[in-house]
Amino acid sequence: MTVNILFAAKAESWDAYQAPLTKALAEKDVTANLSRDIAPDQVDYIVYAPNSTVQDFTPYTRCKAVLNLWAGVENVVGNTTLTQPLARMVDHGLTQGMVEWVTGHTLRHHLGMDRHIHGLKGEWIKEIPPLAEDRHVTILGLGALGSACASAIAGLGFDVTGWSRSPRAVEGVRCLHGTDGLEQALTGAEIVVLLLPLTTATEDLMNADRLALVAQGGVILNPGRGALIDDAALLAALDSGQIGHATLDVFRVEPLPADHPYWAHPSVTVTPHIASETRASSASRVIAENVRRGEAGEPFLHLVDRSLGY
Amino acid sequence: MTVNILFAAKAESWDAYQAPLTKALAEKDVTANLSRDIAPDQVDYIVYAPNSTVQDFTPYTRCKAVLNLWAGVENVVGNTTLTQPLARMVDHGLTQGMVEWVTGHTLRHHLGMDRHIHGLKGEWIKEIPPLAEDRHVTILGLGALGSACASAIAGLGFDVTGWSRSPRAVEGVRCLHGTDGLEQALTGAEIVVLLLPLTTATEDLMNADRLALVAQGGVILNPGRGALIDDAALLAALDSGQIGHATLDVFRVEPLPADHPYWAHPSVTVTPHIASETRASSASRVIAENVRRGEAGEPFLHLVDRSLGY
Repeated sequence: MTVNILFAAKAESWDAYQAPLTKALAEKDVTANLSRDIAPDQVDYIVYAPNSTVQDFTPYTRCKAVLNLWAGVENVVGNTTLTQPLARMVDHGLTQGMVEWVTGHTLRHHLGMDRHIHGLKGEWIKEIPPLAEDRHVTILGLGALGSACASAIAGLGFDVTGWSRSPRAVEGVRCLHGTDGLEQALTGAEIVVLLLPLTTATEDLMNADRLALVAQGGVILNPGRGALIDDAALLAALDSGQIGHATLDVFRVEPLPADHPYWAHPSVTVTPHIASETRASSASRVIAENVRRGEAGEPFLHLVDRSLGY
Repeated sequence: MTVNILFAAKAESWDAYQAPLTKALAEKDVTANLSRDIAPDQVDYIVYAPNSTVQDFTPYTRCKAVLNLWAGVENVVGNTTLTQPLARMVDHGLTQGMVEWVTGHTLRHHLGMDRHIHGLKGEWIKEIPPLAEDRHVTILGLGALGSACASAIAGLGFDVTGWSRSPRAVEGVRCLHGTDGLEQALTGAEIVVLLLPLTTATEDLMNADRLALVAQGGVILNPGRGALIDDAALLAALDSGQIGHATLDVFRVEPLPADHPYWAHPSVTVTPHIASETRASSASRVIAENVRRGEAGEPFLHLVDRSLGY
């Protein structure tokens, strides 16, 4: 039987989701009519973005669930016309994308790829990098993202140290904590990955003193939060050669202003906040799985508890 | 008790090995006198390169083993004065280095890093790559190196297909074989890694017909053997856009001649045969482990069978 799925989100989302959602539904053997225009009383599921024009859910009398495209539900959870089950988006692509960005840039700096990408210009300069087992990588922050990155990098053989404010354990990773642990984690690190939350305690954490602990010529990767770094101190450390390179995905002001010194600095790589973004393909699989569950009479994934608000 | 270890190899090897070998011996709790100059009748072990000046082993009356620095023993195995146990070098760094190069360049192309490394020049162009699970990587060759690379890349979540002439199985990898399997493995592949041995059957394997099977704009990584690729066909495919980029570590003639078109081609990255090289650090650990075994009366690793010649 055909399942009527209303896609209630802006046109650019439809452009991004139409193909992957159609594919994901087919992979779950759901025969679906996926459309932006279905009579409300015929709708079985609503794929929903809180900024859509649908704000009154009353006419959707046979709708079995509202499946949010966004992780955040704060703009919909208070809607009193919404009495159907509401599911949040929990996209493993956010973590997986972060792991890919961190692992990729760690290997890039480890292997010294940039000189080859810029080109050796006919010179056969054979410099053999050390093995990953001889490369000291330190990850600050061992939450969901930091732990996943630490595991992936350790799995490739790197010598990984992780640090968090309170004690954590990650298999294959030397885990440190507290103020003394931070100094120890940074001392001699060759690649430092910043994945801490931004709090008053972590703002400007990477200041001149801490940048000086890193191995001479070491690399900073920041896919966490822009304000974890004292930008002036980082630029000074790059200019002195204490820090060899910084690859930055997040900034205090985004988009990074066109005249910011990071753009033109030869030892800085800017990536435009792409490390961790919801992917239409993986998010579509989450939605398709929930439709499959609804049709099979199984409990929905990631249901919002309206009394708690999330 | 101090163990006398003669380092019998050229001066440049001594420069590369003195520090890591000293460190590796200390890590095995071996108290060693490591030197290039020890009276022959005092020598306990010889760390040996077949091109060293030591060719007569007769005076080394108390030597317990000759530990070769090279994987190849063809230049020493026929030496009739060598009656001591002879161990080959089996350096896991050769495989591990290959895994790091292949994984790193796969992630580099997957993430589209080059545009960021070359610099976006102030433009905040946010293009989100797909997840690894949506990226088709094909590895041609499932020997020791190909299997290790396929496992590592699959472990990061990529959709990996492996191909070999005869059937092989690698966990997490779709394994194909034979002529039909080759066509299937290449069709639609977005990143193709060449790790086949060079035989009359594999020379020029990547010719115009096979390059045309790869996904439009796909990437070729060649850390295997230069002659696996028909160079003229690859250059034509790069110029037409059928192949988006080639990252090449091996060539028909090495060093790659300064006037070779690969050097200047904007869609080619040349790395100077660095993907798989013996590392002094990991090779030193192999030697130190064999000294430890000799002192503990345990059997040596990687002993050469003189009757077989390897």
